[in-house]
Amino acid sequence: MSKSVRVGGHISRQFDEELDEIRSRVLKMGGLVEVQLDKVLDALRDGESSPIIDIEKVDDEINDLEMQIDEECTQILARRHPAAGDLRLIIATTKSVRDLERIGDEAQRVADMVRHAMDRDASKKAFKGLLSLTEHVKEFLHETLNTYARMKTRNAVKIMRRDQEIDSEYSRVVRRLIEFMKKDPENIADGLDVMWAARSLERIGDHCINICENVIYLVEGQDIRHQNVDEVKEQLS
Amino acid sequence: MSKSVRVGGHISRQFDEELDEIRSRVLKMGGLVEVQLDKVLDALRDGESSPIIDIEKVDDEINDLEMQIDEECTQILARRHPAAGDLRLIIATTKSVRDLERIGDEAQRVADMVRHAMDRDASKKAFKGLLSLTEHVKEFLHETLNTYARMKTRNAVKIMRRDQEIDSEYSRVVRRLIEFMKKDPENIADGLDVMWAARSLERIGDHCINICENVIYLVEGQDIRHQNVDEVKEQLS
Repeated sequence: MSKSVRVGGHISRQFDEELDEIRSRVLKMGGLVEVQLDKVLDALRDGESSPIIDIEKVDDEINDLEMQIDEECTQILARRHPAAGDLRLIIATTKSVRDLERIGDEAQRVADMVRHAMDRDASKKAFKGLLSLTEHVKEFLHETLNTYARMKTRNAVKIMRRDQEIDSEYSRVVRRLIEFMKKDPENIADGLDVMWAARSLERIGDHCINICENVIYLVEGQDIRHQNVDEVKEQLS
Repeated sequence: MSKSVRVGGHISRQFDEELDEIRSRVLKMGGLVEVQLDKVLDALRDGESSPIIDIEKVDDEINDLEMQIDEECTQILARRHPAAGDLRLIIATTKSVRDLERIGDEAQRVADMVRHAMDRDASKKAFKGLLSLTEHVKEFLHETLNTYARMKTRNAVKIMRRDQEIDSEYSRVVRRLIEFMKKDPENIADGLDVMWAARSLERIGDHCINICENVIYLVEGQDIRHQNVDEVKEQLS
């Protein structure tokens, strides 16, 4: 982590280690969420649900990590009374962990819906566009985790700008699915499963934005939630 | 707030006032979310969208309050170094505020979908069941806010148990909508709007559960996330 983040400054090496430990656990948690999305991608590429059979185990690990990190953050607040940059690190981490846990839940929902549709032998046409959306959302998540790891405001703003691409791709998938469902009432069940999956992917994008906002808060000390990306850029420049 | 919550104990009257101020702002925020749902209820009862025209203003107020409360909590962490029960109050509050903000977003989505469908002159049949689901979710939210206000573990567990009712009602609404859409492809657009609204209502229920979990953490000092309600009850008894 860049030293400039630690505005507060502190001389305890043990405290440094505690903060590094938390940070590495957050990244481990992020890695597990990426594993979830990789499994969904495998299923979509193979056209069969077996890669996502044991995905619940990953979700359990994610939940355990969330609770551990939260507990560590609380301990640090109680024992170390962090100030300035350290305090922001703890606050931003607690929030980001919450978002990561939600991302894990949404990834689990995507997997459930894909499996549900595949096990019902859904028409391959229903899945059109979902692979590409999943790939892009996974990439988006990966960049978000990198931004958290490196604590770079500029990267965070760049990612926030890209969220519109995910939203547009999501809208295209939904429009296509509506056409698909209108063609034949038999397509409705398949179409809805894929639509729920797409919705969850779009939500993952929203949570990534939250994490980027947390990074900006952490580094700059500014709460830029509920602003559009151009306002944010201007405010930070 | 019950004195027993303040396990840490502190003698500064000003600190007490600060905590009370935060608590009353959280309840104000909750009240605004209730206003959002009331407007949706009015629209559904009247069968026309005018009650939800100015709902964005309420959402802006909710977002402002979220940021204010967050800032106050950070200030208290930095200046007061709260311990034990006070620290848990701050942590639980920051989390609950996040959930309330999400509830506000979901309520806004419900309003948008209802307005969208109504302005398109959607078939009245599409809305069947949505009024009742909205009423129940609003009641659920109201009880959740009461539980936060009174900090009662028993109430929190009781509410958590009722979440299954919301989930079942939501599933019934979705099943009915699928039948409605299957009947005629022309119903698909209307059906989907109402389905998204129902989904957002179900999510509001999930966020209420999170707030109840925060109350239990605050009062009992136990993190009971990712457990089912029977496990929770056993652990607390």
